[in-house]
Amino acid sequence: MLELRLVQGSLLKKVLESIKDLVTDANFDCSATGFSLQAMDSSHVALVALLLRSEGFEHFRCDRNMSMGMNLNNMSKMLKCAGNDDIITVKADDGGDTVTFMFESPNQDKISDFEMKLMDIDTEHLGIPESEYEAIVKMPSQEFARICKDLSTIGDTVVISVTKEGVKFSTKGDIGSANIVCRQNTSVDKPEEATIIEMQEPVSLTFALRYMNSFTKATPLSNSVTISMSSDLPVVVEYKIADMGYIRFYLAPKIEEEEGES
Amino acid sequence: MLELRLVQGSLLKKVLESIKDLVTDANFDCSATGFSLQAMDSSHVALVALLLRSEGFEHFRCDRNMSMGMNLNNMSKMLKCAGNDDIITVKADDGGDTVTFMFESPNQDKISDFEMKLMDIDTEHLGIPESEYEAIVKMPSQEFARICKDLSTIGDTVVISVTKEGVKFSTKGDIGSANIVCRQNTSVDKPEEATIIEMQEPVSLTFALRYMNSFTKATPLSNSVTISMSSDLPVVVEYKIADMGYIRFYLAPKIEEEEGES
Amino acid sequence: MLELRLVQGSLLKKVLESIKDLVTDANFDCSATGFSLQAMDSSHVALVALLLRSEGFEHFRCDRNMSMGMNLNNMSKMLKCAGNDDIITVKADDGGDTVTFMFESPNQDKISDFEMKLMDIDTEHLGIPESEYEAIVKMPSQEFARICKDLSTIGDTVVISVTKEGVKFSTKGDIGSANIVCRQNTSVDKPEEATIIEMQEPVSLTFALRYMNSFTKATPLSNSVTISMSSDLPVVVEYKIADMGYIRFYLAPKIEEEEGES
Repeated sequence: MLELRLVQGSLLKKVLESIKDLVTDANFDCSATGFSLQAMDSSHVALVALLLRSEGFEHFRCDRNMSMGMNLNNMSKMLKCAGNDDIITVKADDGGDTVTFMFESPNQDKISDFEMKLMDIDTEHLGIPESEYEAIVKMPSQEFARICKDLSTIGDTVVISVTKEGVKFSTKGDIGSANIVCRQNTSVDKPEEATIIEMQEPVSLTFALRYMNSFTKATPLSNSVTISMSSDLPVVVEYKIADMGYIRFYLAPKIEEEEGES
Repeated sequence: MLELRLVQGSLLKKVLESIKDLVTDANFDCSATGFSLQAMDSSHVALVALLLRSEGFEHFRCDRNMSMGMNLNNMSKMLKCAGNDDIITVKADDGGDTVTFMFESPNQDKISDFEMKLMDIDTEHLGIPESEYEAIVKMPSQEFARICKDLSTIGDTVVISVTKEGVKFSTKGDIGSANIVCRQNTSVDKPEEATIIEMQEPVSLTFALRYMNSFTKATPLSNSVTISMSSDLPVVVEYKIADMGYIRFYLAPKIEEEEGES
Repeated sequence: MLELRLVQGSLLKKVLESIKDLVTDANFDCSATGFSLQAMDSSHVALVALLLRSEGFEHFRCDRNMSMGMNLNNMSKMLKCAGNDDIITVKADDGGDTVTFMFESPNQDKISDFEMKLMDIDTEHLGIPESEYEAIVKMPSQEFARICKDLSTIGDTVVISVTKEGVKFSTKGDIGSANIVCRQNTSVDKPEEATIIEMQEPVSLTFALRYMNSFTKATPLSNSVTISMSSDLPVVVEYKIADMGYIRFYLAPKIEEEEGES
């Protein structure tokens, strides 16, 4: 039997909003460690990994490891019916073919039960090795989202270049080109407004803006985003989920075009 | 001659917004009692009844009973041109073929006259008998609107079941099922937040959510909604209009399917 | 070389939003006087004239007169990438075929360069004679925008009639007719709320509402709008840009139909 009670239910709503456009169907895995998900996007280009640790739940009962296949769009429809202050409990029987989302309003006057059918989804779980990254940029998540959105109005891809001074986002398109430089800045009033660069050596990688924009759907989950890059590895775009875990997006860089080509 | 001056003109705007999607053309009836309307929706399934009592108007002159046929969409277009703080006066000559809506801004700097052509509409006025209801639920209107909207994402019909403990709204659809229970609750800070159940005997009736959602367009008119049900009568969903009257929606229940059928 | 630094960069964003729907491509002219534009709309019915005086810029360097052809839609896309508090600098080399918009965030942490290709646009600069107008109405710009929008829901044209008492906006359409009268009013708390009428003789002119609605896109630039009318001249709808200049729209009146014709 599975019973996960999350007082800050809005977290689960935000998690779904951040991945449902990228991934259609996915297995949620539940174990003593926590509630997690790993899935490729439909075109098998990007990977999303979610972890909500068991300690972050008010109540976490998971008698045996379970993998529950869900259609994320349907799951999102149900979670949208939860109020933002509701407590959400996820319930499932061992071997059952449904999952139940229970929503309790703060004053307990309104109790909702939404039962959803589970799906069988074949997936292979990829082992993602912990890697050392040549450059790690931590910056305000809203700033990153704004930059990706702005550059999309000009071009299709973004070159992210990290030096000690800052991180540069560049694009080119039919109507012109754009460069946005964010300088390292640690002397800010609030820690989440800082832009911090940890760099072994300069990196410059090219990515499809379409995916970056999709990743920024996770912005409501965290004030900061961490972008980890190495020249021979997929970029990791990570949003921490306070006291619970993280959502991480992996995306392989595009092979860079020669300078001078359009 | 007809001249009805309504200081709180935004009320009339809200009334129109709450019925214009349900009813296309309707006769507004004016008599010494007040300004009223009774109309079926275009598929003849739901009935709406509006009453604005003469006492609620700052000035109410109606020399003889009049029935004015209006296209509610056109009327709504004109009323949308009134500011939310404007005083609205409805004017018509006996036997004329137009109605004039006059809008006065609070400081009297801006005076607008909108003249609309009247229509001939054949309708039979139904006598609606006052009935005793087996169960009457009074609840916050926004809560009711939210529930109808939420359940629509899952199914097409709602089963409303009243017991002494509370009222349950249920639906089923392709992606799963949902039950939302609102408990009786009278110990609230503001009276309009109360959920109050008056019940002779338990009732459980099924309705099309499409109509329920349409009725909830009246939510801005009142903080509370009253749902009156008997097993052999149409449900009445009533929004009181402060100091003036009400808007009531009537809808026949669907014949309930056997348990076990989908 | 050209380098124009505008601390209140949001002004330039608002200017673009107010003209880009009316004009597709236009030449921006730069001289010691300032940054200006004159263009006809695509159907050659309305004329827009913009002036941003050099004194309004923090830094204004224009070594020689330049005329830069820009696609206003593309320019708007780039300016939308500037934050509302950003400083905007417009840069161009003499004889170059690009213009650069540089955006600096208030704390200088984020610097963006957007480079746009210039276009060759053939235009003849019209000399607009200074004229005496029979009637000049100054009124709140939001009120004027609201009136044009409201009347568009009823008809296609507006008759603007000025008398000493006030200004009347009228329209007619299939569903009825509308008259909105704004009275002269100088006893207001804030000067921008005043409606002031300077009149040599009464004027009544008819205009296409489509254009009037397009002009009101400039509303965010100024709290007041000035409408100058003479029976034999195009109307001038002017929005002052604080400390910098103005944006003026010119539109020829429609030949008025005989009374009684529809």
